[in-house]
Amino acid sequence: MTTYQKILVAVDLSSESKLVLQKAQQIAGPGADLHVVYVQEPMDNVYVGIVPQSAAFSGLGDLEAQLGEELKEKLGALGKEFGLPSECLHILRGSPAHEIHRFAKEHASQLIVIGTHGQRGLQLLLGSTANSVLHGARCDVLSVRIGAAR
Amino acid sequence: MTTYQKILVAVDLSSESKLVLQKAQQIAGPGADLHVVYVQEPMDNVYVGIVPQSAAFSGLGDLEAQLGEELKEKLGALGKEFGLPSECLHILRGSPAHEIHRFAKEHASQLIVIGTHGQRGLQLLLGSTANSVLHGARCDVLSVRIGAAR
Repeated sequence: MTTYQKILVAVDLSSESKLVLQKAQQIAGPGADLHVVYVQEPMDNVYVGIVPQSAAFSGLGDLEAQLGEELKEKLGALGKEFGLPSECLHILRGSPAHEIHRFAKEHASQLIVIGTHGQRGLQLLLGSTANSVLHGARCDVLSVRIGAAR
Repeated sequence: MTTYQKILVAVDLSSESKLVLQKAQQIAGPGADLHVVYVQEPMDNVYVGIVPQSAAFSGLGDLEAQLGEELKEKLGALGKEFGLPSECLHILRGSPAHEIHRFAKEHASQLIVIGTHGQRGLQLLLGSTANSVLHGARCDVLSVRIGAAR
C-alpha cells in the first residue's frame, strides 16, 4: 500500500509519543524498518545563554547522566509496548533537528514522523521542532498533530 | 493499514504534483475520500505591493479568468490520470495556507498532503507554503519532498 520502508519516528517521550508511533506503524509497509529516536539536548545548551557562569553547571554532568538513564528506560518501555527491538531505539545528544536530519541521512530514511503541537505558549517551543525538522529534511515528513484542537 | 480516510492533497499543478498525488493515494485507506486542491492566488495580491497604482491592473480580471480556465483544464487532466471524479477537484482563490486550512476544516480532513521543495532561491517561496500549511493545521500534514537532493 505504501512505499515507506525506512521510517524514522522522532519522539519527545511524552504520553503523546504513543499516538505518533501508532501513526508511523499504520503507515509503515510490511516488514518496514522503523527507528525511534529521542534527542536529548545538552542542558548547558539550554541554560548557558541565560546564566553563563553559574556554578550549578559543575553538577550538570551527573544530572544529565542520570536523566539519560531514565530516558533510556522510558524509551525501552515504549519500544516494548510497540514490539520494537532495542536496536531500533536510539537516544541521541545534540540539537533535535540537526540530529534527526543526520540520523535520517545515515539511515537513508524515506519518512520522518514527528509530533506537532499547536502554536500556543509553551507548545510553541515544541511545535517549532517539527518546523525545524521540515526545513532541511531530505525526505518526506509526516507531522502528527497532537494535543487539543484536533 | 492506515486510518486516513479523508485526505486533502494540495497541488501547485507543476509536473511534480503527480508525485504528491501518488504518495497521497498510497497512504489513503481503501475507499478513502481524496480531494485535490489548487489555490489560485489573486494577481493583485501578488503585485499590488510592488506597483500599487499600475494601470495594468485594469486588465487583470480577464487575465485571471483565462488563467483560471487553463488551471481548471490542467487540474481536470491530473484528476483523470489518477481516476478521481471531478467533484473531488477544486480550484480555490485566496491565500494558499489560509484556503487549505479552511477547506480542511470544512471537509474534516484527517491529513493534508503537500509538496515541499528545498529552501533555495525561487524554491524558498514554494517551500514556504508547506511551512505555512504546517502552522495552524488542525490535522496531520505529510510534506512530500520534491525536486533534487532527495
